[in-house]
Amino acid sequence: MKQIGVGVLGFGTVGAGVAAGLLKNRELMAQRLGVDVVLRGVADLDIESDRGIEIDPALLTTDASALIANPEIQIIVELIGGTGVAKSLVLEAFAAGKSVVTANKKLLAECGDEIFGAAQQRGVDIYFGASVGGGIPIVRVLREGLAGNQITSMHGILNGTCNYILTRMENEGLSFAEVLRDAQAAGYAESEPSLDIDGHDTAHKAAILASIAYGFHVPMDQLLVEGIRHLSGNDVRYAAEFGYRIKLLAVITRNNEEVEVRVHPTLVPLKHMLASVNDVFNAVMVKGDLSGNTLYYGRGAGSEPTASTVIGDIGDIARNIAANGARFERGINVANDGRVVMRSPGSVSSRYYLRLMVADKAGSLGIMTNILGRYGVSILGATQKAHGCDDVQEDYVPVVMLTHKARESDVNQALKEIYETGVVCEMPIKLRIM
Amino acid sequence: MKQIGVGVLGFGTVGAGVAAGLLKNRELMAQRLGVDVVLRGVADLDIESDRGIEIDPALLTTDASALIANPEIQIIVELIGGTGVAKSLVLEAFAAGKSVVTANKKLLAECGDEIFGAAQQRGVDIYFGASVGGGIPIVRVLREGLAGNQITSMHGILNGTCNYILTRMENEGLSFAEVLRDAQAAGYAESEPSLDIDGHDTAHKAAILASIAYGFHVPMDQLLVEGIRHLSGNDVRYAAEFGYRIKLLAVITRNNEEVEVRVHPTLVPLKHMLASVNDVFNAVMVKGDLSGNTLYYGRGAGSEPTASTVIGDIGDIARNIAANGARFERGINVANDGRVVMRSPGSVSSRYYLRLMVADKAGSLGIMTNILGRYGVSILGATQKAHGCDDVQEDYVPVVMLTHKARESDVNQALKEIYETGVVCEMPIKLRIM
Repeated sequence: MKQIGVGVLGFGTVGAGVAAGLLKNRELMAQRLGVDVVLRGVADLDIESDRGIEIDPALLTTDASALIANPEIQIIVELIGGTGVAKSLVLEAFAAGKSVVTANKKLLAECGDEIFGAAQQRGVDIYFGASVGGGIPIVRVLREGLAGNQITSMHGILNGTCNYILTRMENEGLSFAEVLRDAQAAGYAESEPSLDIDGHDTAHKAAILASIAYGFHVPMDQLLVEGIRHLSGNDVRYAAEFGYRIKLLAVITRNNEEVEVRVHPTLVPLKHMLASVNDVFNAVMVKGDLSGNTLYYGRGAGSEPTASTVIGDIGDIARNIAANGARFERGINVANDGRVVMRSPGSVSSRYYLRLMVADKAGSLGIMTNILGRYGVSILGATQKAHGCDDVQEDYVPVVMLTHKARESDVNQALKEIYETGVVCEMPIKLRIM
Repeated sequence: MKQIGVGVLGFGTVGAGVAAGLLKNRELMAQRLGVDVVLRGVADLDIESDRGIEIDPALLTTDASALIANPEIQIIVELIGGTGVAKSLVLEAFAAGKSVVTANKKLLAECGDEIFGAAQQRGVDIYFGASVGGGIPIVRVLREGLAGNQITSMHGILNGTCNYILTRMENEGLSFAEVLRDAQAAGYAESEPSLDIDGHDTAHKAAILASIAYGFHVPMDQLLVEGIRHLSGNDVRYAAEFGYRIKLLAVITRNNEEVEVRVHPTLVPLKHMLASVNDVFNAVMVKGDLSGNTLYYGRGAGSEPTASTVIGDIGDIARNIAANGARFERGINVANDGRVVMRSPGSVSSRYYLRLMVADKAGSLGIMTNILGRYGVSILGATQKAHGCDDVQEDYVPVVMLTHKARESDVNQALKEIYETGVVCEMPIKLRIM
């Protein structure tokens, strides 16, 4: 049986998972793929610390370039992350004629054009299944399983940290700050949590999904990105009372030749499948013109789930190489003829959840509904709440409104004008309804 | 760009969907795959009836063998169904050196060894993604995305008719017979519904999934198969009161080298993702040793969803052929070295829901719990119900019990003995709890 050698760059959580998985399921993969995938080395600056896996110390090296140059290695797995040394090593691998598997969403979202261009020029494969959705093979599904579909829309829960925080806020009635502290203590959130909770990680993944579906590099600066930092425990509770659960969603939609990519907390109807996706789990609902709605669910991060997808990609390349070097075009920038363009977020229409902290005196409501009416924002339902658990202003009460479909820019203008009247004590909270 | 010709056998619902999809998304697929997939003909005995799609009449023929023999056609799509003419045409296509895409679960489940053997012998591809899960690319995910995983278990809702019936029974409080009549009138159930409601269709699909995961042909006669015909509206209601939803599940589990495949109505906890799969939708939860739990959801049948998966398979073969005829081993019987064997269903342990129609007099309960105790079946909770909506026996009341984990054979013996005492008026209903 033909042997294909693998070199892993980065011996962190995922790197250790990939190494362990390749060693554990080598025989099984050989039976399934007809090719023997052999781990030939793992490179990291630190090869001393215990990673909790059994591995021959002779496989460990601090010399990444030596792995890349090793003629017995055909596939390089980049698990370093970021756009610094990871990028130069990936380009070095291409230059050496090696195919690359990576889980590096930042690298692809920010330098995708350069990376895919270099792979194409050198005639090697780049696979990046684990860059979105961890253990969920969503990248492969989009590129192959749904290859016969025009993708109409995608709605994804793509950040486990945010989903964990939102689930605990709802289940335990806690505030955002309390749960974040807990999550940081438990290792579910970084000490510098901005990448997760402000939506940037989700945005990177959304850009990759949109790029695959529509065949062009989605520029990060054309995404509307809002995180979950401003949500109160009361928002979660009020949403539930209206029959919704708040999720941080990546929303990718196509209208004719315009593609729109947004990331924001969203009220999802409780009966929708995405509302059942709790804790650290991720899921993506994909609507194709033929398939209709399909959903893919699993662990979006973690050593073994991510390794599962990385190893699936390794298997594909190994099979390609074994099949006399057949190479399949897997890059992002292959399916667009320039017709599909990005749509600016301001022109979006949506239904909205509004929470306004309103002065507790006669006439307040009238002033607000008057302004909203002038901007054509029509109210579906409104309810005044008792003081919530994390309100501080004594003389202001929360008023929650659900709107009919309205233009984003109209809603923004109306809320600004309401704020300027002084009838509310803070900028109103505005969440989209799915 | 290289052209690959496709001939479709069978111009029914799915055949029309595949033809329409290939015509509609031809350009898109060419951009994505780098190969031009061309519909060259559709064969059916009836080429006169209107299928509601726009198609050049010159593409239609009644001569299936002529399509198979056409040198401009490299891929034959079999959508006739059954094991009669469909089987001989598939073998004829192999003999002519053509690769085949099929959605025919019966053919694969019952004649898989012969079909895969013939394809292997002739060196052609056979793809069958649409045989399980309709528009859900679950076959591809199992074979490729999760190729690096040992599959620990699969739990699937694989029959849309059953799921539709169960959803309506719960939502509208109707009896099985009422919903079935409605479903038949609406075209969601066949006039001869046994294949669906008695679990055979689910069993075919379960056998295919197990075969892919474990690399051997799963014999249909070693599956435990129970349908939903015996469920009452009360069972659905009582299950909900205990926090469960009843689903017809395919359950595939592996313990060491033993694989067990079962199909039966199952109480799924309301919080479990599978409990949110309603109406005609299907879903499969797959647990891999690396990936952990992943779930795949979508439309399990219908013209366009099934066409989506068929066309995905066509795209794979077209790409293989374009890549200088590279061929990937896709059959079922490739990954097992003979170690993995089927486990007989009798030895299974599970938690159970029991409904007993008990004589409304003193001592009845004591007799039952006594017998259950003797067989080591321990009761987790029991409740006596008022007369339900579809009970007929005046002097008997429903008693529902949930058990701790118990051996299937012990439970069966205990229920038989309880029935023989005459304390119940019918064989007790026994459902497994997930």
